[in-house]
Amino acid sequence: MERTAKVNAAPPDRDQIAAAARALGAFRDGAFRIHCLTNMAAAAFTADVLLALGARPSLTHAPAEVEHFSSSADALLVNLGTLDEDRISGFTRAVAVMNKRRAPWVLDPVLCDRSRPRRALALELLGLKPAIIRLNQGELRSLTGGAENDAAGALAREHGVTVIVTGERDFVTDGERAARIGSGHAFMDRGTAFGCAGAAVTAACAGIGQAPFEAAVSSLLIFNRAGAITGRAAAGPGSFRPLFLDALFHMTASDLSTADFHNIEAAS
Amino acid sequence: MERTAKVNAAPPDRDQIAAAARALGAFRDGAFRIHCLTNMAAAAFTADVLLALGARPSLTHAPAEVEHFSSSADALLVNLGTLDEDRISGFTRAVAVMNKRRAPWVLDPVLCDRSRPRRALALELLGLKPAIIRLNQGELRSLTGGAENDAAGALAREHGVTVIVTGERDFVTDGERAARIGSGHAFMDRGTAFGCAGAAVTAACAGIGQAPFEAAVSSLLIFNRAGAITGRAAAGPGSFRPLFLDALFHMTASDLSTADFHNIEAAS
Amino acid sequence: MERTAKVNAAPPDRDQIAAAARALGAFRDGAFRIHCLTNMAAAAFTADVLLALGARPSLTHAPAEVEHFSSSADALLVNLGTLDEDRISGFTRAVAVMNKRRAPWVLDPVLCDRSRPRRALALELLGLKPAIIRLNQGELRSLTGGAENDAAGALAREHGVTVIVTGERDFVTDGERAARIGSGHAFMDRGTAFGCAGAAVTAACAGIGQAPFEAAVSSLLIFNRAGAITGRAAAGPGSFRPLFLDALFHMTASDLSTADFHNIEAAS
Repeated sequence: MERTAKVNAAPPDRDQIAAAARALGAFRDGAFRIHCLTNMAAAAFTADVLLALGARPSLTHAPAEVEHFSSSADALLVNLGTLDEDRISGFTRAVAVMNKRRAPWVLDPVLCDRSRPRRALALELLGLKPAIIRLNQGELRSLTGGAENDAAGALAREHGVTVIVTGERDFVTDGERAARIGSGHAFMDRGTAFGCAGAAVTAACAGIGQAPFEAAVSSLLIFNRAGAITGRAAAGPGSFRPLFLDALFHMTASDLSTADFHNIEAAS
Repeated sequence: MERTAKVNAAPPDRDQIAAAARALGAFRDGAFRIHCLTNMAAAAFTADVLLALGARPSLTHAPAEVEHFSSSADALLVNLGTLDEDRISGFTRAVAVMNKRRAPWVLDPVLCDRSRPRRALALELLGLKPAIIRLNQGELRSLTGGAENDAAGALAREHGVTVIVTGERDFVTDGERAARIGSGHAFMDRGTAFGCAGAAVTAACAGIGQAPFEAAVSSLLIFNRAGAITGRAAAGPGSFRPLFLDALFHMTASDLSTADFHNIEAAS
Repeated sequence: MERTAKVNAAPPDRDQIAAAARALGAFRDGAFRIHCLTNMAAAAFTADVLLALGARPSLTHAPAEVEHFSSSADALLVNLGTLDEDRISGFTRAVAVMNKRRAPWVLDPVLCDRSRPRRALALELLGLKPAIIRLNQGELRSLTGGAENDAAGALAREHGVTVIVTGERDFVTDGERAARIGSGHAFMDRGTAFGCAGAAVTAACAGIGQAPFEAAVSSLLIFNRAGAITGRAAAGPGSFRPLFLDALFHMTASDLSTADFHNIEAAS
């Protein structure tokens, strides 16, 4: 991954870990509101993840209401899973509100490599300037026309967006800086909606006022570290899910600074 | 809370506890059908809660079908979360069937304080005479015009509805009588849809034939007591959820009569 | 049940158990794509079940996208729960794609005995030739006009479909052959969406190339055996669900061949 962005991707440094720790504290103290336009398989778990951290999720996508919710939200998540006409209409309205307020939103173009209309919608939304986009290699390839080399960095520079590319290690770039973060635990790929919920935590970190690159790194540090902790206790991908929420709830700054998680050669 | 209703709110008495115990037995023996028009984040958990108790949930909201399901349901839940046009149309049709059959329904105006159209819909539905409404302080304030004093009691008297106000302790009034019930456990606020599922249990208690005030108290005794039991075993809000369903499944009459739960000064 | 099909229903034999074991291996190696048009209460758990086995679920029902997902899916599930207009339109489009590709799809007419329009839709979809239909006794009765005797076998012969009838034991027939399989554990009836997710596993077994009767038997062997294993460890229907996913994840061929599960007189 590092090479593809043509920027030097490093493990998170002390400042980034401190920023993630500040995010943990802010969630617990601040009652931040994160509005999540997400798919029906991810809705409950996404809300649970935000609540475990102390943030306040809302989920409504109805065109008549989405502006009301967006106008009092600290950040917005736009997830393209299980699309329907209502949700598409809701996206545009919610994004317009956030952009007008200069409030951050995160785009998660789930499975845009499986459907041409979804790919077109993802590109249209990318043009509306999300703070951060989160995607996997297949989705990145479908949006950037096939080239993997420098794809994430180029996407970041072209759209002024921070890009998270998930994979064996997660990779973050804003086109200039880059970081790589251990992806947590393999069970996160064997249960639905972990990626979707991770993007909601990214929105939450942006919602407390962290700049896009910082918010992306903070959220991955928190989310993936919770996965690594949980992986030591879970017997399988089913018991992993409730224990993961427990880990988010109990996470402390000292959990984030553990060195072996950041020496991530063996992670996931 | 007690003062706001200008009625004397007492902990549940022996008769109320006996009524809750009868409800537990009825669910297990009676195959009661509870139709739940609820939001996408609450659907699965709401069904799981009813199934754990022995009731039979259904969830369809499509306008073409909702009358068929309502006409054979023992009670109906109307929850305003994640609204869309289909669900709004479904509400009106389902409520009309229940009212014609003189069968009970419960209104849960989730987050009506966050959206003007939702507040208007909540007021419209309140005019259609639910047996019971369940809301938190913010939602109560949005529906009653700002005054907290006597708000719940006045709402109850004006609409002939039993009002449940959730909070640090839950409060029930029909405008004349009032009761307060320990709210169970703080983890119920750190996972999504506990309130929504609690309202479904209230509908279920009404569905077995308990009068609205009695049904409201019974359901809170069952639901919150399960929360208190679970709170002693759960390591966090994630493991709380499956253990809560286990607690509902195994709950007995003797679990309900434990005195220290009703001396609720320290609850939650 | 055996009598109703007028065919000799036997416990699964060595060949059927070997086919189920091959399915387990194929899921883990093959990255098979199963598109699930399912209800909102079942979506997350259905995806979790497929992911635990190693298959790749997708869930989109939007008319504009469902053909794109179906055209690259190895199998399709059509589940009639929580219907709406979008989903109905999505069904027809997705089924047309699968039929044109001669790819298998499974019909789960959830609660078609509770709603006349849903029963009509189930019959219409049955006419479009699913490989397999899965229903319970009440649903079977509503589709076959009331006669229980030979209902499943007659349905199978009339429509050229393999029929799974769930109950105290599950029953499979293609009109000529029949098998009965222990139903796993009673907790599967005390949590939502176990039947829906089981039908998705049936679709997955068809998606790896097993013929309909074989796929139906394989999927029930895998799914119900996981239930029986889980039932020995779970304290209630809540803890059952995560442990069930763990059991699917860890299931081996030797788990399937345990004799006492197939001497099913005492099962469930």
